Amino acid sequence: MIRKVIRLQKEEGIIPEGSSLLIAFSGGVDSVVLVDVILELKDFFRLKRIALAHFNHMIRDEAFRDEWFCKRFAKERGLEIFTGREDVRSRAREEKRNLEETARDLRYAFLRRTKEEQNFDLIATAHHLSDLVETTLIWMVRGAGIEGLLGFDPKEGDVVRPLYRVSKEEITEYAKAKGLRWVEDKTNYDLRFFRNRIRHRVVPVLKEVNRNLEETFFRMRRILKDEDEILRSMAERVLVEARVEGGCLTAEVVRKAPVAIQRRVIREWSGVRNLSKIDQIRCLLFRGGEVILGNGLKAVRKGPLLCLKKFS
Amino acid sequence: MIRKVIRLQKEEGIIPEGSSLLIAFSGGVDSVVLVDVILELKDFFRLKRIALAHFNHMIRDEAFRDEWFCKRFAKERGLEIFTGREDVRSRAREEKRNLEETARDLRYAFLRRTKEEQNFDLIATAHHLSDLVETTLIWMVRGAGIEGLLGFDPKEGDVVRPLYRVSKEEITEYAKAKGLRWVEDKTNYDLRFFRNRIRHRVVPVLKEVNRNLEETFFRMRRILKDEDEILRSMAERVLVEARVEGGCLTAEVVRKAPVAIQRRVIREWSGVRNLSKIDQIRCLLFRGGEVILGNGLKAVRKGPLLCLKKFS
Repeated sequence: MIRKVIRLQKEEGIIPEGSSLLIAFSGGVDSVVLVDVILELKDFFRLKRIALAHFNHMIRDEAFRDEWFCKRFAKERGLEIFTGREDVRSRAREEKRNLEETARDLRYAFLRRTKEEQNFDLIATAHHLSDLVETTLIWMVRGAGIEGLLGFDPKEGDVVRPLYRVSKEEITEYAKAKGLRWVEDKTNYDLRFFRNRIRHRVVPVLKEVNRNLEETFFRMRRILKDEDEILRSMAERVLVEARVEGGCLTAEVVRKAPVAIQRRVIREWSGVRNLSKIDQIRCLLFRGGEVILGNGLKAVRKGPLLCLKKFS
Repeated sequence: MIRKVIRLQKEEGIIPEGSSLLIAFSGGVDSVVLVDVILELKDFFRLKRIALAHFNHMIRDEAFRDEWFCKRFAKERGLEIFTGREDVRSRAREEKRNLEETARDLRYAFLRRTKEEQNFDLIATAHHLSDLVETTLIWMVRGAGIEGLLGFDPKEGDVVRPLYRVSKEEITEYAKAKGLRWVEDKTNYDLRFFRNRIRHRVVPVLKEVNRNLEETFFRMRRILKDEDEILRSMAERVLVEARVEGGCLTAEVVRKAPVAIQRRVIREWSGVRNLSKIDQIRCLLFRGGEVILGNGLKAVRKGPLLCLKKFS
């Protein structure tokens, strides 16, 4: 497993030498292994500083037990730890939002805040290859184009994922072999609920046929990723050429591009991700009319231009 | 359901007016519904001639009962039927091949032979949207690039699939509503075994989250298909430019293309579909050496050229 972490770093250089690293730490097996591996590879990574950040979502009864575990773990390892708390369930209710998404947003807000205040270079999360498989399947089922199938990257902005190439099995084996202790996360709500079903009911069936499912997804992803980049830069060029003052697009310029590029240009320009909506907007390249986009915006064909307008 | 068949024909025109159609007929619910729908839409499709073709794989005890059912069905409907038989299991054993693939190859050979001998224009099969979902998942699990994720087309060469946009549920509902009779295919072997697991254990879980799973896959596929076409034609252009006499490629021309296009050029040129093999061959663009491809061929870097050679 350690080998895969080293290989990822050598191939993709996700953590620059001399970085300071804030590790997102839930106390679960993934993050316990992440910390252990990073401490093992401290010299290899040449890190300037390492600390943990734990966010208490206050959703479950065990949340405070987990927070206590994390603090004790940090103390045992001689690591700094920053903790934050928020009653995520109440916030979600107030804002009428999905619990999982609210939890995620508040957690990342806490991590970013801590990173800025404490002057860290990077946030490290314990996302691994089995997460990638699950995420890809989830996006596939919910309906996404190529970028849904790409899941997440080993490095996205200031977030790095050193366990990116490691499967859950390898993580658990490593934890057991080293006699590590961790807390179990028994949460089972909203999106997590679906993820759990994918994890426990879908992935095992797929693995009966392909024991190297994770590796297969990893390879597939690399190919799709490279292909995506080509299409993305083609769309970018069209977008730059088509854009006029006021943020409108010259319909004719977009119309000349292949259909697949038209879709990407419109998604990039309008921010709309829903596929049938995108195709509706695409029709405005060829004829007059307007399409309501939600969030108070509509796409309108005005003479030679395609524009976004507020409506009330 | 009929509406979806009409819509596919209107949008994609898979069956030209005045065609003669040989319908692959197993006697299962899919193919019974296919025949029924085509007879209902006889005027709409303006078909010159319709006949059935049944291939008896002789794998199961019920195979002869099925053949008898098919003949009687044809008689009741006043349709011509052509039948073929082959002991698929023995053939697979003799040729040391996978049973499912052997069955498929022999079935298609029979269909093509009948089509040619009897002067039909097209073969119609009962593949539907739920098959497409299963096929996509199977390819995804087995490891495929974008083209695995594309599954199959509504029209491929001389094969057309009028039920392409229809889900299995809609087919079964239609069959029950019209009081149709059919035979059950209980085969459960090899690849079919995996397909059945996908069908009965994976798809239902995915549908708990997205009841419109089939439609979602259909939309995703349309996008991927359009994007695939762009990449395919880019690769084709590079291939044409790079190819020299004797079938070798000018390494430098391929090298200048983006990585994703390099991969596609090499796959197209070498016929190799295994991803890590393709990346091995790709390395020959940058340095000397050779890669064994199996089937008695190897890829060799010779000066400025990349060539395929036989080896013994």
